[in-house]
Amino acid sequence: MDRTATGDNLDMTLPDQPLLLSPRQARARFRTGLVPPTTSGWCGGFAQANLLAVPRELAFDALLFARRNDRPCPLLDVTDPGDPVPREVAPEADLRTDLPGYRVYENGEPIVEVADATPYWRDDMVAFLFGCSFTFEGALRAAGVPVRHIEQGRNVPMYVTTRQCTPAGRLAGPLVVSMRPIPSPLVGLAGEVTACYPTMHGGPVHAGDPAELGIKDLDAPDFGDRVDSRPGDVPVFWACGVTPQAVVMASRPPYAITHTPGLMFITDRTDVSFRTA
Amino acid sequence: MDRTATGDNLDMTLPDQPLLLSPRQARARFRTGLVPPTTSGWCGGFAQANLLAVPRELAFDALLFARRNDRPCPLLDVTDPGDPVPREVAPEADLRTDLPGYRVYENGEPIVEVADATPYWRDDMVAFLFGCSFTFEGALRAAGVPVRHIEQGRNVPMYVTTRQCTPAGRLAGPLVVSMRPIPSPLVGLAGEVTACYPTMHGGPVHAGDPAELGIKDLDAPDFGDRVDSRPGDVPVFWACGVTPQAVVMASRPPYAITHTPGLMFITDRTDVSFRTA
Repeated sequence: MDRTATGDNLDMTLPDQPLLLSPRQARARFRTGLVPPTTSGWCGGFAQANLLAVPRELAFDALLFARRNDRPCPLLDVTDPGDPVPREVAPEADLRTDLPGYRVYENGEPIVEVADATPYWRDDMVAFLFGCSFTFEGALRAAGVPVRHIEQGRNVPMYVTTRQCTPAGRLAGPLVVSMRPIPSPLVGLAGEVTACYPTMHGGPVHAGDPAELGIKDLDAPDFGDRVDSRPGDVPVFWACGVTPQAVVMASRPPYAITHTPGLMFITDRTDVSFRTA
Repeated sequence: MDRTATGDNLDMTLPDQPLLLSPRQARARFRTGLVPPTTSGWCGGFAQANLLAVPRELAFDALLFARRNDRPCPLLDVTDPGDPVPREVAPEADLRTDLPGYRVYENGEPIVEVADATPYWRDDMVAFLFGCSFTFEGALRAAGVPVRHIEQGRNVPMYVTTRQCTPAGRLAGPLVVSMRPIPSPLVGLAGEVTACYPTMHGGPVHAGDPAELGIKDLDAPDFGDRVDSRPGDVPVFWACGVTPQAVVMASRPPYAITHTPGLMFITDRTDVSFRTA
Protein backbone atom coordinates (compact mmCIF):
# COMPACT_ATOMS: atom_id res chain seq x y z
CA MET A 1 0.00 0.00 0.00
CA ASP A 2 1.68 3.23 -1.17
CA ARG A 3 0.73 5.97 1.23
CA THR A 4 1.95 8.71 -1.06
CA ALA A 5 -0.78 7.71 -3.49
CA THR A 6 -3.36 8.97 -1.02
CA GLY A 7 -1.25 11.80 0.37
CA ASP A 8 -3.98 14.34 -0.21
CA ASN A 9 -6.09 12.43 2.30
CA LEU A 10 -3.51 12.65 5.09
CA ASP A 11 -6.00 14.22 7.47
CA MET A 12 -5.51 13.27 11.11
CA THR A 13 -8.53 15.17 12.40
CA LEU A 14 -11.52 13.12 13.50
CA PRO A 15 -14.54 13.43 11.20
CA ASP A 16 -17.44 15.43 12.63
CA GLN A 17 -19.95 12.71 11.83
CA PRO A 18 -18.20 9.34 11.63
CA LEU A 19 -21.65 7.71 11.68
CA LEU A 20 -22.23 9.01 8.15
CA LEU A 21 -19.01 7.76 6.55
CA SER A 22 -19.12 4.78 4.20
CA PRO A 23 -16.96 1.78 5.14
CA ARG A 24 -14.70 2.58 2.20
CA GLN A 25 -14.26 6.19 3.36
CA ALA A 26 -13.56 5.11 6.93
CA ARG A 27 -11.05 2.46 5.87
CA ALA A 28 -9.27 5.02 3.66
CA ARG A 29 -8.90 7.32 6.69
CA PHE A 30 -7.52 4.48 8.81
CA ARG A 31 -5.20 3.42 6.00
CA THR A 32 -3.64 6.87 6.00
CA GLY A 33 -3.02 6.69 9.73
CA LEU A 34 -6.07 8.07 11.53
CA VAL A 35 -6.54 6.37 14.92
CA PRO A 36 -9.85 7.27 16.61
CA PRO A 37 -10.57 6.36 20.26
CA THR A 38 -12.97 3.69 19.01
CA THR A 39 -14.88 2.69 15.88
CA SER A 40 -18.11 2.36 17.89
CA GLY A 41 -20.57 4.75 16.29
CA TRP A 42 -18.73 4.79 12.93
CA CYS A 43 -20.37 3.95 9.58
CA GLY A 44 -23.96 3.59 10.75
CA GLY A 45 -25.68 0.55 9.26
CA PHE A 46 -22.52 -1.45 8.57
CA ALA A 47 -21.18 -4.48 10.40
CA GLN A 48 -17.89 -4.31 12.29
CA ALA A 49 -15.49 -7.18 12.94
CA ASN A 50 -12.71 -8.37 15.23
CA LEU A 51 -9.40 -9.54 13.73
CA LEU A 52 -7.22 -12.53 14.59
CA ALA A 53 -4.40 -13.37 12.19
CA VAL A 54 -2.08 -16.32 12.78
CA PRO A 55 0.52 -18.20 10.75
CA ARG A 56 -0.90 -21.06 8.70
CA GLU A 57 0.58 -23.54 11.15
CA LEU A 58 -1.89 -22.39 13.84
CA ALA A 59 -4.82 -21.76 11.52
CA PHE A 60 -6.58 -25.09 12.03
CA ASP A 61 -6.53 -24.66 15.79
CA ALA A 62 -7.89 -21.13 15.39
CA LEU A 63 -10.67 -22.19 13.02
CA LEU A 64 -11.63 -25.10 15.27
CA PHE A 65 -11.57 -22.78 18.30
CA ALA A 66 -13.97 -20.45 16.49
CA ARG A 67 -16.31 -23.31 15.65
CA ARG A 68 -16.34 -24.53 19.25
CA ASN A 69 -16.74 -21.04 20.71
CA ASP A 70 -19.09 -19.34 18.30
CA ARG A 71 -20.57 -17.04 20.93
CA PRO A 72 -17.36 -15.01 21.40
CA CYS A 73 -15.95 -15.96 17.96
CA PRO A 74 -18.77 -15.89 15.37
CA LEU A 75 -16.93 -16.31 12.09
CA LEU A 76 -17.62 -13.80 9.31
CA ASP A 77 -14.66 -14.48 7.03
CA VAL A 78 -11.43 -16.49 6.73
CA THR A 79 -8.68 -15.65 4.28
CA ASP A 80 -6.48 -18.02 2.35
CA PRO A 81 -2.95 -18.18 3.75
CA GLY A 82 -1.06 -15.07 2.67
CA ASP A 83 -4.13 -13.29 1.29
CA PRO A 84 -4.87 -10.06 3.22
CA VAL A 85 -8.21 -9.50 1.45
CA PRO A 86 -11.44 -10.44 3.28
CA ARG A 87 -13.25 -11.59 0.15
CA GLU A 88 -16.58 -12.39 1.78
CA VAL A 89 -17.19 -9.17 3.69
CA ALA A 90 -15.04 -6.48 2.00
CA PRO A 91 -13.43 -7.64 -1.24
CA GLU A 92 -11.68 -4.30 -1.87
CA ALA A 93 -10.10 -3.98 1.57
CA ASP A 94 -6.66 -4.89 2.90
CA LEU A 95 -6.55 -6.26 6.43
CA ARG A 96 -2.92 -5.20 6.87
CA THR A 97 -3.74 -1.49 6.68
CA ASP A 98 -7.48 -0.87 6.91
CA LEU A 99 -7.98 -1.17 10.66
CA PRO A 100 -7.12 1.82 12.85
CA GLY A 101 -4.93 -0.17 15.21
CA TYR A 102 -3.23 -3.53 15.62
CA ARG A 103 -1.54 -5.49 18.37
CA VAL A 104 1.27 -7.89 17.54
CA TYR A 105 1.81 -10.80 19.94
CA GLU A 106 4.90 -12.99 20.32
CA ASN A 107 4.58 -15.98 22.63
CA GLY A 108 1.45 -14.44 24.11
CA GLU A 109 3.01 -11.07 24.90
CA PRO A 110 1.87 -7.93 23.06
CA ILE A 111 5.16 -6.65 21.64
CA VAL A 112 3.95 -3.63 19.71
CA GLU A 113 0.83 -1.60 18.88
CA VAL A 114 0.76 -0.15 15.38
CA ALA A 115 -1.53 1.63 12.91
CA ASP A 116 -0.15 -0.35 9.94
CA ALA A 117 0.46 -4.08 10.27
CA THR A 118 2.16 -4.47 6.89
CA PRO A 119 5.70 -4.89 8.27
CA TYR A 120 4.45 -7.59 10.65
CA TRP A 121 2.26 -9.51 8.19
CA ARG A 122 4.08 -12.75 7.42
CA ASP A 123 3.66 -14.51 4.08
CA ASP A 124 1.54 -17.33 5.47
CA MET A 125 -0.79 -15.34 7.72
CA VAL A 126 -4.42 -16.51 7.82
CA ALA A 127 -6.89 -13.85 8.97
CA PHE A 128 -10.14 -14.54 10.80
CA LEU A 129 -12.86 -11.92 11.16
CA PHE A 130 -15.38 -12.34 13.97
CA GLY A 131 -18.60 -10.35 14.39
CA CYS A 132 -18.52 -7.35 16.77
CA SER A 133 -21.24 -6.15 19.11
CA PHE A 134 -20.76 -2.58 17.82
CA THR A 135 -22.82 -3.88 14.90
CA PHE A 136 -26.04 -4.14 16.92
CA GLU A 137 -25.64 -0.82 18.72
CA GLY A 138 -27.56 0.96 15.96
CA ALA A 139 -30.46 -1.45 16.45
CA LEU A 140 -30.32 -0.92 20.22
CA ARG A 141 -30.52 2.85 19.82
CA ALA A 142 -33.28 2.54 17.21
CA ALA A 143 -35.23 0.50 19.77
CA GLY A 144 -34.82 3.26 22.33
CA VAL A 145 -32.08 1.59 24.35
CA PRO A 146 -29.35 4.11 25.25
CA VAL A 147 -25.74 3.12 24.60
CA ARG A 148 -23.82 4.85 27.37
CA HIS A 149 -20.31 4.58 26.00
CA ILE A 150 -21.36 6.23 22.75
CA GLU A 151 -23.16 8.97 24.71
CA GLN A 152 -19.94 9.50 26.65
CA GLY A 153 -17.63 9.36 23.63
CA ARG A 154 -15.71 6.40 24.98
CA ASN A 155 -14.68 2.89 23.98
CA VAL A 156 -16.83 0.07 25.38
CA PRO A 157 -15.46 -1.50 28.59
CA MET A 158 -14.32 -5.11 28.26
CA TYR A 159 -13.47 -7.63 31.00
CA VAL A 160 -11.67 -10.96 31.19
CA THR A 161 -14.02 -13.36 32.99
CA THR A 162 -13.47 -16.56 34.96
CA ARG A 163 -15.49 -18.53 32.37
CA GLN A 164 -13.28 -20.74 30.22
CA CYS A 165 -13.76 -21.28 26.50
CA THR A 166 -13.82 -24.77 24.99
CA PRO A 167 -10.18 -25.50 24.05
CA ALA A 168 -9.09 -26.42 20.51
CA GLY A 169 -5.61 -27.78 19.91
CA ARG A 170 -3.09 -25.39 21.43
CA LEU A 171 -5.67 -22.67 22.07
CA ALA A 172 -7.44 -22.26 25.40
CA GLY A 173 -8.34 -19.36 27.62
CA PRO A 174 -11.02 -17.24 29.24
CA LEU A 175 -14.13 -15.61 27.82
CA VAL A 176 -13.95 -11.83 27.43
CA VAL A 177 -17.16 -9.80 27.65
CA SER A 178 -18.18 -6.27 26.76
CA MET A 179 -20.47 -4.40 29.15
CA ARG A 180 -23.21 -1.87 28.53
CA PRO A 181 -25.15 -0.28 31.39
CA ILE A 182 -28.84 -0.61 30.44
CA PRO A 183 -31.80 1.03 32.22
CA SER A 184 -33.46 -1.73 34.23
CA PRO A 185 -36.81 -1.63 32.37
CA LEU A 186 -35.01 -1.98 29.01
CA VAL A 187 -32.80 -4.99 29.82
CA GLY A 188 -35.33 -7.44 28.34
CA LEU A 189 -35.67 -5.39 25.19
CA ALA A 190 -31.88 -5.15 24.82
CA GLY A 191 -31.74 -8.92 25.04
CA GLU A 192 -34.43 -9.37 22.41
CA VAL A 193 -32.84 -6.94 19.97
CA THR A 194 -29.32 -8.33 20.25
CA ALA A 195 -30.46 -11.98 20.09
CA CYS A 196 -31.43 -11.21 16.49
CA TYR A 197 -27.72 -10.84 15.65
CA PRO A 198 -26.25 -14.28 16.45
CA THR A 199 -23.14 -13.61 14.34
CA MET A 200 -22.54 -10.39 16.31
CA HIS A 201 -22.42 -12.33 19.63
CA GLY A 202 -26.21 -12.51 19.95
CA GLY A 203 -28.00 -11.89 23.25
CA PRO A 204 -26.27 -11.16 26.57
CA VAL A 205 -24.37 -13.90 28.40
CA HIS A 206 -25.21 -12.26 31.73
CA ALA A 207 -27.03 -9.30 33.30
CA GLY A 208 -26.51 -8.04 36.84
CA ASP A 209 -23.89 -8.96 39.44
CA PRO A 210 -20.45 -8.78 37.77
CA ALA A 211 -19.05 -11.13 40.42
CA GLU A 212 -20.85 -14.02 38.75
CA LEU A 213 -18.43 -13.61 35.84
CA GLY A 214 -15.51 -13.12 38.23
CA ILE A 215 -15.34 -9.39 37.48
CA LYS A 216 -14.18 -7.57 40.62
CA ASP A 217 -14.39 -3.93 39.64
CA LEU A 218 -16.55 -2.57 36.81
CA ASP A 219 -14.55 0.66 36.95
CA ALA A 220 -11.35 -1.16 36.00
CA PRO A 221 -11.97 -2.84 32.62
CA ASP A 222 -9.23 -5.02 31.18
CA PHE A 223 -9.69 -3.39 27.76
CA GLY A 224 -11.42 -0.23 26.58
CA ASP A 225 -12.69 2.59 28.79
CA ARG A 226 -14.54 2.87 32.06
CA VAL A 227 -18.12 3.97 31.37
CA ASP A 228 -20.45 5.85 33.73
CA SER A 229 -23.72 4.20 34.67
CA ARG A 230 -26.80 6.20 35.48
CA PRO A 231 -29.11 5.52 38.44
CA GLY A 232 -31.25 2.49 37.64
CA ASP A 233 -28.83 1.06 35.07
CA VAL A 234 -28.01 -2.64 35.18
CA PRO A 235 -24.68 -3.92 33.82
CA VAL A 236 -25.37 -6.20 30.85
CA PHE A 237 -22.61 -8.40 29.40
CA TRP A 238 -22.11 -9.74 25.88
CA ALA A 239 -19.50 -12.21 24.63
CA CYS A 240 -16.69 -10.23 23.03
CA GLY A 241 -14.40 -10.73 20.05
CA VAL A 242 -11.41 -9.71 22.17
CA THR A 243 -11.65 -13.25 23.58
CA PRO A 244 -9.06 -14.49 21.02
CA GLN A 245 -6.59 -11.96 22.47
CA ALA A 246 -7.11 -13.30 26.00
CA VAL A 247 -6.70 -16.79 24.53
CA VAL A 248 -3.45 -15.77 22.79
CA MET A 249 -2.18 -14.34 26.09
CA ALA A 250 -3.15 -17.53 27.95
CA SER A 251 -1.98 -20.05 25.32
CA ARG A 252 1.17 -18.22 24.19
CA PRO A 253 1.34 -19.30 20.53
CA PRO A 254 4.50 -18.08 18.79
CA TYR A 255 2.87 -15.32 16.75
CA ALA A 256 -0.44 -13.53 16.26
CA ILE A 257 -1.78 -10.19 15.09
CA THR A 258 -5.09 -8.77 16.31
CA HIS A 259 -6.96 -5.50 16.16
CA THR A 260 -6.58 -3.10 19.08
CA PRO A 261 -9.65 -3.65 21.30
CA GLY A 262 -12.35 -1.18 20.24
CA LEU A 263 -10.65 -0.36 16.91
CA MET A 264 -12.46 -2.69 14.57
CA PHE A 265 -12.47 -3.63 10.92
CA ILE A 266 -15.49 -2.04 9.24
CA THR A 267 -17.00 -4.35 6.61
CA ASP A 268 -19.03 -3.61 3.48
CA ARG A 269 -21.88 -5.78 4.80
CA THR A 270 -24.90 -4.06 6.32
CA ASP A 271 -25.86 -4.81 9.89
CA VAL A 272 -29.36 -5.87 8.83
CA SER A 273 -27.86 -8.48 6.48
CA PHE A 274 -26.80 -10.33 9.64
CA ARG A 275 -30.18 -9.93 11.36
CA THR A 276 -32.01 -13.26 11.59
CA ALA A 277 -35.47 -12.17 12.75
CA MET B 1 -10.34 -52.14 19.67
CA ASP B 2 -9.96 -55.77 20.64
CA ARG B 3 -12.29 -57.78 18.47
CA THR B 4 -12.04 -60.85 20.67
CA ALA B 5 -13.72 -58.89 23.44
CA THR B 6 -16.90 -58.80 21.37
CA GLY B 7 -16.44 -62.22 19.89
CA ASP B 8 -19.89 -63.37 20.90
CA ASN B 9 -21.31 -60.73 18.58
CA LEU B 10 -19.43 -61.97 15.52
CA ASP B 11 -22.62 -62.27 13.53
CA MET B 12 -22.20 -61.55 9.84
CA THR B 13 -25.88 -61.96 8.94
CA LEU B 14 -27.82 -58.83 8.10
CA PRO B 15 -30.41 -57.89 10.72
CA ASP B 16 -34.03 -58.45 9.68
CA GLN B 17 -35.05 -54.94 10.65
CA PRO B 18 -32.04 -52.62 10.59
CA LEU B 19 -34.47 -49.71 10.87
CA LEU B 20 -35.16 -50.70 14.48
CA LEU B 21 -31.55 -50.96 15.68
CA SER B 22 -30.15 -48.27 17.95
CA PRO B 23 -27.05 -46.44 16.69
CA ARG B 24 -25.01 -48.16 19.40
CA GLN B 25 -26.26 -51.59 18.30
CA ALA B 26 -25.57 -50.84 14.64
CA ARG B 27 -22.06 -49.53 15.35
CA ALA B 28 -21.31 -52.64 17.42
CA ARG B 29 -22.28 -54.80 14.43
CA PHE B 30 -20.08 -52.77 12.09
CA ARG B 31 -17.23 -52.86 14.61
CA THR B 32 -17.29 -56.64 14.53
CA GLY B 33 -17.07 -56.65 10.77
CA LEU B 34 -20.59 -56.58 9.33
CA VAL B 35 -20.65 -54.78 5.97
CA PRO B 36 -24.19 -54.16 4.68
CA PRO B 37 -24.87 -52.97 1.10
CA THR B 38 -25.75 -49.53 2.54
CA THR B 39 -26.73 -47.90 5.83
CA SER B 40 -29.70 -46.20 4.17
CA GLY B 41 -32.76 -47.36 6.10
CA TRP B 42 -30.76 -48.25 9.22
CA CYS B 43 -31.50 -46.87 12.72
CA GLY B 44 -34.71 -45.00 11.93
CA GLY B 45 -34.82 -41.56 13.52
CA PHE B 46 -31.06 -41.10 13.81
CA ALA B 47 -28.76 -38.88 11.77
CA GLN B 48 -26.09 -40.37 9.53
CA ALA B 49 -22.79 -38.77 8.55
CA ASN B 50 -20.04 -38.80 5.93
CA LEU B 51 -16.41 -39.16 7.02
CA LEU B 52 -13.28 -37.36 5.86
CA ALA B 53 -10.12 -37.84 7.90
CA VAL B 54 -6.85 -36.14 6.98
CA PRO B 55 -3.50 -35.57 8.67
CA ARG B 56 -3.32 -32.43 10.78
CA GLU B 57 -1.23 -30.76 8.11
CA LEU B 58 -4.23 -30.70 5.74
CA ALA B 59 -6.88 -30.08 8.39
CA PHE B 60 -7.07 -26.30 7.98
CA ASP B 61 -7.65 -26.63 4.26
CA ALA B 62 -10.33 -29.26 4.89
CA LEU B 63 -12.11 -27.18 7.53
CA LEU B 64 -11.98 -24.10 5.33
CA PHE B 65 -13.25 -26.15 2.37
CA ALA B 66 -16.21 -27.29 4.50
CA ARG B 67 -16.98 -23.72 5.51
CA ARG B 68 -16.90 -22.54 1.90
CA ASN B 69 -18.93 -25.50 0.59
CA ASP B 70 -21.49 -26.09 3.29
CA ARG B 71 -24.08 -27.49 0.90
CA PRO B 72 -22.09 -30.68 0.13
CA CYS B 73 -20.04 -30.49 3.37
CA PRO B 74 -22.33 -29.43 6.24
CA LEU B 75 -20.13 -29.90 9.29
CA LEU B 76 -21.51 -31.94 12.20
CA ASP B 77 -18.30 -32.62 14.13
CA VAL B 78 -14.53 -32.17 14.01
CA THR B 79 -12.12 -34.15 16.18
CA ASP B 80 -8.93 -32.97 17.78
CA PRO B 81 -5.83 -34.29 16.00
CA GLY B 82 -5.34 -37.93 16.96
CA ASP B 83 -8.70 -38.25 18.72
CA PRO B 84 -10.95 -40.83 16.96
CA VAL B 85 -14.01 -39.96 19.10
CA PRO B 86 -16.71 -37.71 17.60
CA ARG B 87 -17.51 -35.99 20.89
CA GLU B 88 -20.33 -33.82 19.60
CA VAL B 89 -22.46 -36.43 17.87
CA ALA B 90 -21.48 -39.83 19.37
CA PRO B 91 -19.17 -39.51 22.40
CA GLU B 92 -18.93 -43.28 22.92
CA ALA B 93 -18.04 -44.17 19.33
CA ASP B 94 -14.70 -44.77 17.62
CA LEU B 95 -14.41 -43.49 14.06
CA ARG B 96 -11.64 -45.99 13.25
CA THR B 97 -13.91 -49.01 13.64
CA ASP B 98 -17.57 -47.98 13.84
CA LEU B 99 -18.33 -47.43 10.16
CA PRO B 100 -19.04 -50.44 7.96
CA GLY B 101 -16.50 -49.51 5.32
CA TYR B 102 -13.59 -47.18 4.64
CA ARG B 103 -11.55 -46.04 1.67
CA VAL B 104 -7.91 -45.08 2.12
CA TYR B 105 -6.46 -42.63 -0.40
CA GLU B 106 -2.81 -41.93 -1.17
CA ASN B 107 -2.08 -39.04 -3.53
CA GLY B 108 -5.71 -39.08 -4.59
CA GLU B 109 -5.80 -42.78 -5.46
CA PRO B 110 -7.94 -45.20 -3.44
CA ILE B 111 -5.36 -47.76 -2.32
CA VAL B 112 -7.53 -50.03 -0.20
CA GLU B 113 -11.10 -50.57 0.99
CA VAL B 114 -11.40 -51.94 4.54
CA ALA B 115 -13.94 -52.64 7.27
CA ASP B 116 -11.55 -51.50 10.03
CA ALA B 117 -9.46 -48.36 9.54
CA THR B 118 -7.39 -48.78 12.71
CA PRO B 119 -4.19 -49.88 10.93
CA TYR B 120 -4.44 -46.85 8.64
CA TRP B 121 -5.33 -44.23 11.26
CA ARG B 122 -2.23 -42.08 11.75
CA ASP B 123 -1.50 -40.40 15.07
CA ASP B 124 -2.36 -36.93 13.84
CA MET B 125 -5.54 -37.68 11.92
CA VAL B 126 -8.32 -35.09 12.15
CA ALA B 127 -11.79 -36.42 11.36
CA PHE B 128 -14.63 -34.40 9.87
CA LEU B 129 -18.23 -35.61 9.89
CA PHE B 130 -20.63 -34.11 7.36
CA GLY B 131 -24.40 -34.54 7.36
CA CYS B 132 -25.86 -37.22 5.07
CA SER B 133 -29.08 -37.14 3.07
CA PHE B 134 -30.01 -40.61 4.39
CA THR B 135 -31.00 -38.63 7.50
CA PHE B 136 -34.00 -37.00 5.82
CA GLU B 137 -35.25 -40.12 4.06
CA GLY B 138 -37.42 -40.98 7.07
CA ALA B 139 -39.07 -37.57 6.83
CA LEU B 140 -39.57 -38.05 3.09
CA ARG B 141 -41.32 -41.38 3.61
CA ALA B 142 -43.37 -39.99 6.50
CA ALA B 143 -44.54 -37.25 4.12
CA GLY B 144 -45.61 -39.89 1.60
CA VAL B 145 -42.66 -39.47 -0.76
CA PRO B 146 -41.38 -42.88 -1.90
CA VAL B 147 -37.64 -43.52 -1.67
CA ARG B 148 -36.94 -45.83 -4.58
CA HIS B 149 -33.51 -47.10 -3.60
CA ILE B 150 -34.82 -48.24 -0.20
CA GLU B 151 -37.81 -49.91 -1.90
CA GLN B 152 -35.34 -51.70 -4.16
CA GLY B 153 -32.86 -52.61 -1.40
CA ARG B 154 -30.03 -50.70 -3.04
CA ASN B 155 -27.51 -47.98 -2.25
CA VAL B 156 -28.41 -44.49 -3.47
CA PRO B 157 -26.88 -43.58 -6.87
CA MET B 158 -24.28 -40.79 -6.76
CA TYR B 159 -22.77 -38.80 -9.63
CA VAL B 160 -19.76 -36.54 -10.12
CA THR B 161 -21.07 -33.33 -11.71
CA THR B 162 -19.45 -30.62 -13.80
CA ARG B 163 -20.15 -28.04 -11.07
CA GLN B 164 -17.00 -27.00 -9.23
CA CYS B 165 -16.79 -26.40 -5.50
CA THR B 166 -15.19 -23.25 -4.08
CA PRO B 167 -11.50 -24.14 -3.57
CA ALA B 168 -9.73 -23.84 -0.21
CA GLY B 169 -5.96 -24.10 -0.03
CA ARG B 170 -4.86 -27.32 -1.74
CA LEU B 171 -8.42 -28.66 -2.02
CA ALA B 172 -10.55 -28.20 -5.13
CA GLY B 173 -12.83 -30.40 -7.14
CA PRO B 174 -16.31 -31.14 -8.42
CA LEU B 175 -19.64 -31.36 -6.63
CA VAL B 176 -21.03 -34.88 -6.16
CA VAL B 177 -24.80 -35.36 -5.96
CA SER B 178 -27.12 -38.14 -4.86
CA MET B 179 -30.22 -38.82 -6.95
CA ARG B 180 -33.69 -39.99 -5.98
CA PRO B 181 -36.44 -40.54 -8.57
CA ILE B 182 -39.51 -38.70 -7.22
CA PRO B 183 -43.06 -38.91 -8.64
CA SER B 184 -43.61 -35.66 -10.52
CA PRO B 185 -46.47 -34.40 -8.29
CA LEU B 186 -44.32 -34.90 -5.17
CA VAL B 187 -41.16 -33.07 -6.31
CA GLY B 188 -42.23 -29.84 -4.62
CA LEU B 189 -43.07 -31.61 -1.38
CA ALA B 190 -39.72 -33.43 -1.43
CA GLY B 191 -38.02 -30.05 -1.78
CA GLU B 192 -39.97 -28.58 1.12
CA VAL B 193 -39.30 -31.52 3.44
CA THR B 194 -35.57 -31.72 2.75
CA ALA B 195 -35.04 -27.95 2.93
CA CYS B 196 -35.85 -28.32 6.65
CA TYR B 197 -32.57 -30.23 7.07
CA PRO B 198 -29.87 -27.73 6.03
CA THR B 199 -27.11 -29.69 7.81
CA MET B 200 -28.15 -32.81 5.88
CA HIS B 201 -27.59 -31.02 2.51
CA GLY B 202 -30.97 -29.24 2.61
CA GLY B 203 -33.20 -29.00 -0.48
CA PRO B 204 -32.31 -30.32 -3.93
CA VAL B 205 -29.66 -28.60 -6.04
CA HIS B 206 -31.47 -29.65 -9.22
CA ALA B 207 -34.52 -31.52 -10.50
CA GLY B 208 -34.98 -32.78 -14.02
CA ASP B 209 -32.51 -33.01 -16.91
CA PRO B 210 -29.31 -34.69 -15.64
CA ALA B 211 -27.35 -33.07 -18.49
CA GLU B 212 -27.58 -29.73 -16.70
CA LEU B 213 -25.25 -31.18 -14.08
CA GLY B 214 -23.07 -32.81 -16.73
CA ILE B 215 -24.43 -36.28 -15.92
CA LYS B 216 -24.48 -38.35 -19.13
CA ASP B 217 -26.11 -41.59 -18.02
CA LEU B 218 -28.31 -41.97 -14.94
CA ASP B 219 -27.89 -45.74 -15.21
CA ALA B 220 -24.13 -45.46 -14.68
CA PRO B 221 -23.62 -43.77 -11.32
CA ASP B 222 -20.05 -42.97 -10.22
CA PHE B 223 -20.79 -44.33 -6.73
CA GLY B 224 -23.55 -46.50 -5.28
CA ASP B 225 -26.13 -48.45 -7.26
CA ARG B 226 -28.27 -47.86 -10.30
CA VAL B 227 -31.88 -47.36 -9.20
CA ASP B 228 -35.02 -48.03 -11.22
CA SER B 229 -37.38 -45.13 -11.88
CA ARG B 230 -41.11 -45.64 -12.27
CA PRO B 231 -43.19 -43.98 -14.97
CA GLY B 232 -43.77 -40.35 -14.04
CA ASP B 233 -40.71 -40.14 -11.79
CA VAL B 234 -38.41 -37.11 -12.08
CA PRO B 235 -34.74 -37.39 -11.12
CA VAL B 236 -34.06 -35.08 -8.17
CA PHE B 237 -30.50 -34.29 -7.08
CA TRP B 238 -29.10 -33.36 -3.68
CA ALA B 239 -25.57 -32.24 -2.77
CA CYS B 240 -23.69 -35.27 -1.45
CA GLY B 241 -21.11 -35.84 1.25
CA VAL B 242 -19.08 -37.98 -1.13
CA THR B 243 -17.95 -34.64 -2.61
CA PRO B 244 -14.82 -34.66 -0.38
CA GLN B 245 -13.83 -37.96 -2.02
CA ALA B 246 -14.10 -36.45 -5.51
CA VAL B 247 -12.09 -33.50 -4.19
CA VAL B 248 -9.41 -35.84 -2.80
CA MET B 249 -9.24 -37.58 -6.17
CA ALA B 250 -8.97 -34.23 -8.00
CA SER B 251 -6.57 -32.51 -5.59
CA ARG B 252 -4.40 -35.52 -4.75
CA PRO B 253 -3.36 -34.69 -1.16
CA PRO B 254 -0.83 -37.19 0.26
CA TYR B 255 -3.24 -39.03 2.54
CA ALA B 256 -6.93 -39.27 3.45
CA ILE B 257 -9.42 -41.77 4.83
CA THR B 258 -13.13 -41.62 4.01
CA HIS B 259 -16.17 -43.81 4.45
CA THR B 260 -17.17 -46.08 1.57
CA PRO B 261 -19.95 -44.26 -0.31
CA GLY B 262 -23.29 -45.37 1.13
CA LEU B 263 -21.74 -46.91 4.25
CA MET B 264 -22.15 -44.07 6.71
CA PHE B 265 -21.34 -43.29 10.31
CA ILE B 266 -24.56 -43.48 12.35
CA THR B 267 -24.65 -40.82 15.07
CA ASP B 268 -26.46 -40.70 18.42
CA ARG B 269 -28.24 -37.52 17.36
CA THR B 270 -31.86 -37.76 16.25
CA ASP B 271 -32.80 -36.60 12.78
CA VAL B 272 -35.39 -34.18 14.19
CA SER B 273 -32.68 -32.49 16.27
CA PHE B 274 -31.31 -31.21 12.95
CA ARG B 275 -34.70 -30.10 11.63
CA THR B 276 -34.97 -26.33 11.51
CA ALA B 277 -38.65 -25.81 10.77
